Amino acid sequence: MSTAGKQLKLGLFIQSAGHHAAAWRHPEAATGQSHNVRYYQQLARTAERGTFDLIFLADDLAVPLPFKSALTDRYGKLEPLTLLANLAAVTEHIGLAATLSTTFNEPYHAARKFASLDHISGGRAAWNVVTSALHDEARNFGQQEIPEHDLRYDRADEFVQVAAGLWDSWEEDAVLADKESGRYFDAEKVHVLNHQGTFFSVRGPLNVARPIQGRPVIIQAGSSGTGQQFAAKHAEIVFTVQNDLAQAKQFYKQVKQLAQTHGRSADDIKILPGLFPIIGHTPEEAEARFQQLQGLVDRGIGTALLGGVFDNIDLSGYADDEPFPELQDAHGTRSRFQLVMDTARREGLTVREVYLRFASARGHLTVIGTPEQIADRMEQWLNEEAADGFNIMPPFMPGGLDEFVDKVIPLLRQRGLFRTEYEGRTLRENLGLPRPASRYAQAAGEGEA
Amino acid sequence: MSTAGKQLKLGLFIQSAGHHAAAWRHPEAATGQSHNVRYYQQLARTAERGTFDLIFLADDLAVPLPFKSALTDRYGKLEPLTLLANLAAVTEHIGLAATLSTTFNEPYHAARKFASLDHISGGRAAWNVVTSALHDEARNFGQQEIPEHDLRYDRADEFVQVAAGLWDSWEEDAVLADKESGRYFDAEKVHVLNHQGTFFSVRGPLNVARPIQGRPVIIQAGSSGTGQQFAAKHAEIVFTVQNDLAQAKQFYKQVKQLAQTHGRSADDIKILPGLFPIIGHTPEEAEARFQQLQGLVDRGIGTALLGGVFDNIDLSGYADDEPFPELQDAHGTRSRFQLVMDTARREGLTVREVYLRFASARGHLTVIGTPEQIADRMEQWLNEEAADGFNIMPPFMPGGLDEFVDKVIPLLRQRGLFRTEYEGRTLRENLGLPRPASRYAQAAGEGEA
Repeated sequence: MSTAGKQLKLGLFIQSAGHHAAAWRHPEAATGQSHNVRYYQQLARTAERGTFDLIFLADDLAVPLPFKSALTDRYGKLEPLTLLANLAAVTEHIGLAATLSTTFNEPYHAARKFASLDHISGGRAAWNVVTSALHDEARNFGQQEIPEHDLRYDRADEFVQVAAGLWDSWEEDAVLADKESGRYFDAEKVHVLNHQGTFFSVRGPLNVARPIQGRPVIIQAGSSGTGQQFAAKHAEIVFTVQNDLAQAKQFYKQVKQLAQTHGRSADDIKILPGLFPIIGHTPEEAEARFQQLQGLVDRGIGTALLGGVFDNIDLSGYADDEPFPELQDAHGTRSRFQLVMDTARREGLTVREVYLRFASARGHLTVIGTPEQIADRMEQWLNEEAADGFNIMPPFMPGGLDEFVDKVIPLLRQRGLFRTEYEGRTLRENLGLPRPASRYAQAAGEGEA
Repeated sequence: MSTAGKQLKLGLFIQSAGHHAAAWRHPEAATGQSHNVRYYQQLARTAERGTFDLIFLADDLAVPLPFKSALTDRYGKLEPLTLLANLAAVTEHIGLAATLSTTFNEPYHAARKFASLDHISGGRAAWNVVTSALHDEARNFGQQEIPEHDLRYDRADEFVQVAAGLWDSWEEDAVLADKESGRYFDAEKVHVLNHQGTFFSVRGPLNVARPIQGRPVIIQAGSSGTGQQFAAKHAEIVFTVQNDLAQAKQFYKQVKQLAQTHGRSADDIKILPGLFPIIGHTPEEAEARFQQLQGLVDRGIGTALLGGVFDNIDLSGYADDEPFPELQDAHGTRSRFQLVMDTARREGLTVREVYLRFASARGHLTVIGTPEQIADRMEQWLNEEAADGFNIMPPFMPGGLDEFVDKVIPLLRQRGLFRTEYEGRTLRENLGLPRPASRYAQAAGEGEA
């Protein structure tokens, strides 16, 4: 088989007390720790013990308001880049990935922050490029409504291009630091960008040296058509919601092919579906642990959860046992909205059944079983080209992560599917991704040829 | 004397290889370390050993272009908040202060970042609120020119008010995290800001819990009339350029009085002039060490240095030995521009003499002498109410910092002028500043009275 010897790439998706919406009510969950840096340091160290490729912190820019009475542990936490810069000090190898929205930020700020994180961590930074999808976010930045979906992606596309240009500002050997001659820079190797585009006008150069990885690793997480095009063009890791093997294989193939139409190698874009593992000594124990979590979901948690998908749609008028209503997507995160609606229609779910479904894995691949069963599924998806690895979403933490590292990772290692120690020095090296050349270095190279 | 028992407050102003413009050429300076986190970790640990109140990182948002050929180690470095979040992991007590400009940022982002840093550091964050003054900065954010001086301060004023409102979003006891009842928040204690102002429209609430210090410590560093008004209203620390005892006393008195007109206590605003110490075993050795640094200033370094003050004014047409030209301030950082011009006129300085003057302390108080002489001057300024302490600017680093900590700090401690260990848990406690109450807690308190 062509995938023989292929190894899994693993991310740890960190989410306060865990990914199950009721995780914080679980007896073993670290509840009320969402602002406690020592809690995150513990998670990062555990993930590094498990030789995960990276840890990942999602982000949004608002506390969603219509659901105020149902606010959970999701809606207040540390700003991801600040937290990752701290975690860089207590880890050595693991990649540090964070979401930063292109909708309400400036590329100069974003490029500086990720370049700085990359220097601080010795080449371990990754940026999950997103567009903001909630009106609640717009209202914290002087706007009433979120811009239209395709417009947001156009802005994101230009945003990433500007950031890439800024990361190229300094050639590798721009700093001379020659005490004798008094020349600190080779000024010929510090470049002005002079970007003039639709959304941005940025002169440059960046006031941070070229990142250790050349550019931070670029992640993309939207699965809409526009999102896939964006991923094919820019992304080196794709986070995706998949729960069906056939569909996952189709998505995998499609994104890799799209990347090739942009002149990229299929190997240079890693597809990592989310994986929500519920681990038990026996299948029965795993199922019982799942039901324990589901039993903690009350209507408040369920409604708050769907609030993130159905921005500004009030579900309080619908009873728990009613069929899930027909809703129309106005501006939301399209692929997620569609996934929820399709699932509800296809399976004829009630309101309660929908929120219970999304309370667990929010549509991601869920494996409830023994460590062997979880490893089997991961191996199958890798071998059948449905995934290059997974973004692991422990249902509750820290316990759910500890179990994964202590029980599942050793099996993956025994099977030759996962590293026992870090191969490289940077995140790119561990992922097997090429280090992007500076546009100026290329130009010089061509000139010499 | 009324100041008996009064103690100095000390900041360490960190600047790559040191504050002397030619520091990076000094044989003992850490040259080429401006992106090396371990270098900054070493400085922060040394400062904490010296029980400094805080370390401070300045910031700007551009590499100034007309002076490209004279770029020095100042023009590329790590983004300050990213760096401070990392330093929080390797220190326990010292305050962590950074500049963040209100001109090209959004208050929601700024409030989140400083709140996050405050949580991560256990209550040690401080924000030096500035306005951006260089056209080169505007050009990285879609604008051709910097807005006019007073307009920038109006925006800064509203920016800080919005940030303060966002920090008050969550009352102290907003999080219930009650696993039994399923109530994570007390929704009555999470507040919407609904700010609608001239520059910003921000709904809130912030998605980060109330900072450990209530609000981060606010610093202000501009000494123009508008700057003083801003400081009197908002600042808890004032960084200022003073080199004359009488003028410094005047400034000290004036700012404290202005603060009182805003209903604040004179003790709640700490005046910290910059202090540039050149230390020798004898006065002669100190002078020789100063001359060694001055001898390393060439025309390139001098021109680059003045470039930061005389934004977009090209000095290359003036010879070193010409009298310094009459220049007009268009948009620059007014107080600094005025200081340089006044000094040049008053003393009839040549171009070279001006850049040599500003190559050292950039107009700040310079003390060249033995540890005793430096301690004497600090004691004098404290006792005569010219300063509550100093922002220490080592001429070169790390050596200049090590010397200060090993030779000057022990003298200050012997004289009872400086702490031997940290008194408090947070930066506010160490500075003796009150913890601001939330506007909502106050309202509730009044309701109960």
